[in-house]
Amino acid sequence: MKPIGRVKKISDKQSALEVEQALVNGLEGLCPGMKIQILYWMHELSPEDRRILKAHPKGDTGRPERGVFSLRSQVRPNPIGVTMAEVIRIEGPNVVVQGLDARDHSPLIDIKAYPRY
Amino acid sequence: MKPIGRVKKISDKQSALEVEQALVNGLEGLCPGMKIQILYWMHELSPEDRRILKAHPKGDTGRPERGVFSLRSQVRPNPIGVTMAEVIRIEGPNVVVQGLDARDHSPLIDIKAYPRY
Repeated sequence: MKPIGRVKKISDKQSALEVEQALVNGLEGLCPGMKIQILYWMHELSPEDRRILKAHPKGDTGRPERGVFSLRSQVRPNPIGVTMAEVIRIEGPNVVVQGLDARDHSPLIDIKAYPRY
Repeated sequence: MKPIGRVKKISDKQSALEVEQALVNGLEGLCPGMKIQILYWMHELSPEDRRILKAHPKGDTGRPERGVFSLRSQVRPNPIGVTMAEVIRIEGPNVVVQGLDARDHSPLIDIKAYPRY
């Protein structure tokens, strides 16, 4: 697996998915208003975080810990985030989206239409 | 990234997600009826398939090709499948699910609750 690009935060609400120049042809067909599923690597997680197998739901210590595979917590063996977002505009290799919660500079793994068009 | 387990086809409708023994504690909290999002590696794709950047929507050659990032086609630089499925039962390290279209022996990358519990 190798990154197809990276996430650049624009504001609280918007981010740009900056795709590698060699892969820009893969963006053809994306249009403003489309819903997409974005896969990215949560690069700020440490090797220790990746060994954690139990966590509190939504980080709420008032609730008992559960297995990470029954949650959407960030800590998990393969820290891949999967988020739905909406395409706002496309500017060359940059797809500006709204609704992505990825950190700035997160390596981008994949962009998929959602649902299937 | 390393696999957390693998997919074993049981029938047309059902598959087992066989998780590594060292990660079984991560399954705690999964229950029959829960919807989960499964990430797996589409291991049957060749290196050539991973270089394809355009494809016909749903494989329909009557429709013009589009960029793979605007589709859910299997061909894409990082062939990670993301599918929703329902937990049917849990048997030790095996999570039996319904609705997963992954091929037999696909390396399992992640299991996430969906939506957030």
